[in-house]
Amino acid sequence: MPTSLKINTDEVAVYALGGLGEIGKNCYAIEYKDDIVVIDAGVMFPEDELLGIDYVIPDYNYLVENKDRIRGVVITHGHEDHIGGIPWLLKQVNLPIYALPLSLALIRGKLEEHGLLRDAKLFEINADSVLKFGTMTVDFFRTTHSIPEPVAVAVHTPQGVIVETGDFKFDFTPVGEPADLHKMAKLGEEGVLLLMSDSTNAEIPIFSNSEKVVGASIMKIFERIEGRIIFASFASNMFRLQQAIDGAVKTGRKVVVFGRSMEKAIVNGLELGYIHAPEGTIIDPSEISQVPSHELVIMCTGSQGEPMAALSRIANGMHRHVTLQMGDTIVFSSNAIPGNTHGVNQLINKISEAGATVIYGKTNNIHTSGHGGQQEQKLMLRLLKPKFFMPIHGEYRMLKIHAGLAQDTGVPKENCFIQQNGDVLALTADSCRFADHFRADDIYVDGNGIGEIGNAVLRDRHELSEDGIVVAVATVDIKKKQVLAGPDLLSRGFIYMKESGDLIRSGQRVLFNAIRKAMDEKDANEATVAIAMREAIGPFLYKETEREPLIVPMVMSPDK
Amino acid sequence: MPTSLKINTDEVAVYALGGLGEIGKNCYAIEYKDDIVVIDAGVMFPEDELLGIDYVIPDYNYLVENKDRIRGVVITHGHEDHIGGIPWLLKQVNLPIYALPLSLALIRGKLEEHGLLRDAKLFEINADSVLKFGTMTVDFFRTTHSIPEPVAVAVHTPQGVIVETGDFKFDFTPVGEPADLHKMAKLGEEGVLLLMSDSTNAEIPIFSNSEKVVGASIMKIFERIEGRIIFASFASNMFRLQQAIDGAVKTGRKVVVFGRSMEKAIVNGLELGYIHAPEGTIIDPSEISQVPSHELVIMCTGSQGEPMAALSRIANGMHRHVTLQMGDTIVFSSNAIPGNTHGVNQLINKISEAGATVIYGKTNNIHTSGHGGQQEQKLMLRLLKPKFFMPIHGEYRMLKIHAGLAQDTGVPKENCFIQQNGDVLALTADSCRFADHFRADDIYVDGNGIGEIGNAVLRDRHELSEDGIVVAVATVDIKKKQVLAGPDLLSRGFIYMKESGDLIRSGQRVLFNAIRKAMDEKDANEATVAIAMREAIGPFLYKETEREPLIVPMVMSPDK
Repeated sequence: MPTSLKINTDEVAVYALGGLGEIGKNCYAIEYKDDIVVIDAGVMFPEDELLGIDYVIPDYNYLVENKDRIRGVVITHGHEDHIGGIPWLLKQVNLPIYALPLSLALIRGKLEEHGLLRDAKLFEINADSVLKFGTMTVDFFRTTHSIPEPVAVAVHTPQGVIVETGDFKFDFTPVGEPADLHKMAKLGEEGVLLLMSDSTNAEIPIFSNSEKVVGASIMKIFERIEGRIIFASFASNMFRLQQAIDGAVKTGRKVVVFGRSMEKAIVNGLELGYIHAPEGTIIDPSEISQVPSHELVIMCTGSQGEPMAALSRIANGMHRHVTLQMGDTIVFSSNAIPGNTHGVNQLINKISEAGATVIYGKTNNIHTSGHGGQQEQKLMLRLLKPKFFMPIHGEYRMLKIHAGLAQDTGVPKENCFIQQNGDVLALTADSCRFADHFRADDIYVDGNGIGEIGNAVLRDRHELSEDGIVVAVATVDIKKKQVLAGPDLLSRGFIYMKESGDLIRSGQRVLFNAIRKAMDEKDANEATVAIAMREAIGPFLYKETEREPLIVPMVMSPDK
Repeated sequence: MPTSLKINTDEVAVYALGGLGEIGKNCYAIEYKDDIVVIDAGVMFPEDELLGIDYVIPDYNYLVENKDRIRGVVITHGHEDHIGGIPWLLKQVNLPIYALPLSLALIRGKLEEHGLLRDAKLFEINADSVLKFGTMTVDFFRTTHSIPEPVAVAVHTPQGVIVETGDFKFDFTPVGEPADLHKMAKLGEEGVLLLMSDSTNAEIPIFSNSEKVVGASIMKIFERIEGRIIFASFASNMFRLQQAIDGAVKTGRKVVVFGRSMEKAIVNGLELGYIHAPEGTIIDPSEISQVPSHELVIMCTGSQGEPMAALSRIANGMHRHVTLQMGDTIVFSSNAIPGNTHGVNQLINKISEAGATVIYGKTNNIHTSGHGGQQEQKLMLRLLKPKFFMPIHGEYRMLKIHAGLAQDTGVPKENCFIQQNGDVLALTADSCRFADHFRADDIYVDGNGIGEIGNAVLRDRHELSEDGIVVAVATVDIKKKQVLAGPDLLSRGFIYMKESGDLIRSGQRVLFNAIRKAMDEKDANEATVAIAMREAIGPFLYKETEREPLIVPMVMSPDK
């Protein structure tokens, strides 16, 4: 029996499974009577404190329970935080996916890796497509972003139009197609009931730079450099890759590409027409030794300092084809995503120490964000003139600032709704209210397991990482009050045991006495002995070392 | 027998035990014949990857071996990365310390905590002091920085003057005393042999803002706010604290102070005359409930998102005196130090969610760095006109950029020396060369132990933090080829064991078979059985879970 929402039958429900209060795992849905439209299904990359977790996805339970009403999943663009959750979602319920060609190519690659491609229901659309989903009609308009083919979604419901912007900036001189300002203006004139808009850069007051500005900087830098150029960037930004290729061509250089995602992006880009290069510009890695340094651009992954990516391997002398040499210039056409700052800085240090030159940082105009700042967010608000506003795609402080910007453009304060994942907004043509909430928790993906890693396991990993673990084991015959083997102490991540013989021997004595005493008690059993062991050895180790490892006592009995 | 350096007897040696290739644990030394002068002795706060490590200090071995020649340790200012190592150094060798009053007060506090104060040899100096250290004379000049009483050190050796700047910016309208430009100019005119200069902000092209600019912003913000103000900042920046107090006084507010280091700073500041407040301005926490919200400024620690600091406790509803309320405004008069960005952002999210307003970020002019950017570094170079240059206090990329700036101001490239900790420069009046290297490794401090935490332990902590640990135990009688107890499996940080009964039972079977098989081998012993256990259970768990926990087999024998 599926969960049903506490809304009136003529109300439209709007909710997020992911994307509110966080950057990542975007997944929004719009529901009217028997029809549900889902927008995006992304993953989130875990913060460092989620030790050993590979991905975070939303709890798709609500969608699974209501699968019979879901008409489709429409995709705004091909970034991981918008499409990375699709394999995990389709494993639970095989929904039809609607996406533009590039997003679809990326989704296909993912589904193939997960063995899901054969049965997937994939539909290619374009920015002019109109999809009839029961009582709702969905169409799109082009925006500009750091990957080709970004679109916003307009869901026409019987109560009014709901617009979800996807990720956007306003780039009036983009490398790809311009945003469809006129379609936005028309939607605004006809009346938008609810705007759900990208809040990523709500803290940034300035208007973002155009991609063309970055292109001009790349050209200037390429013209100045005399030796080999190593160009690191986000693989998904094909506009950037194209501009680096343009720079190479104009300065008489060949291009060689390293790193799996970069290679794939070039292949996809050439195929879909987003990347152009004169015959012979892009050469095979095997030809690299025949090209003089000053005629070469190496394009590679690893701009975030990822230890296994091409750039780190080059810097560490572990790359098959490239060794850093004096005269090399490494261009970071990227910014460090907050959690990666330290890794990127270490990589820059390593490259500098090797005698190469590094070009990075804001002062070089070598990167621009794919997300618009406050000015652009206000332009979207002015164009669409929504009656109600719901900031999406951001941590709480960003959503809050974005709601303030909406009020600055004339949306009444009581019409702005800062929601959490699982919160349900209920709308009619002239009302909007917080109506319900369902569970939309984080689900951790580690290895091939989904959801087995709970908070208890993560708490243990934290404790383990701080002071290590000490296991105390003894084999005892409780009835005979005998210690048959042990007690033994074993540790990992605590102290260097080989140099701590005295500590171990004293600890064994402490344990032995505690076990004997515990067995003398009435009703002694394995559990009471184990507790006595922990209570004896923990304080002893703290006194000796001022550290508090995780203590795990283990009592074995021969009669088991 | 102390290590002696491979230099000629008339050469001056200059080296760092810490501070090169890193931000932290600054400790430099200048040595001529039988005399050694040490400058600063700081700690470094560990990167996240040093799991569970509390501090990093330099290996003081070289100083300990040569203690008879060390005439004194002079201190440039009272920040942790310049004085935090003193207790660990004095535990190994009780050297005399020379510092200005504020630094000395902070050092006394540290030594008292470590029970070292009674025997310490502490000498108070001022910016005009001249210290005779055998063949060398040391004097000082005032600079400007984010703590009162910063000085640079000039060491007059028989071969020439060596200047170490300490941490500095050029603030022409400081809140405290101005820098002594004339003493710098005079030194430059008379001739500086070697300049060792602060490289922290070598990546930043702009001239840093004056502390007074921040004061003006604080005043404007305080005038605008109607409710309660919570002001979070670095406790050591007494100038900032004074400006917040000034803002409170001018807007008719009382001040209450929370957080141990902030309380201590206010006490020290009042005592040393760096903080002034009209009678009755600073009130006791117990009086807080009697003051209306709009007449209150709460000054507190926690601007870096530290979980146990006052601000985090206020945000989490765990503070004894203060609960966040609507209408509160929290002012972060600080920047997030790189590793702390995530924690600070989470704190801002939490405060926003509680309905309070947060003022933070660069656009509000609410903070300025204590370190000068490129313009200021060049001004120092121009004033001192050194013959030789050695950038200090920075990661490699910063040192490299700083060396480039020195060349821009006319120091020949071959006269710039980018050194590492333990590298020895040897100077005469007209030469400078890289002469020697001694070990100057990182020493990890965890709990009360120094140096017991080696790389093997840290590697274990990393593995533990990623996929947890699985301990496999069995008590066996190898001669009789019997398993007496177990095998048992125990894990922490791996998967949630209570829900994994099947996995454990299958794992026990796998272990049991492996043990039996191992005992059947010729020359079977505890080690061969343990290896067999690990080789059986590791692949089994990987196949079932795609995770690779640290596997620790443990074989117990009754005859032990």
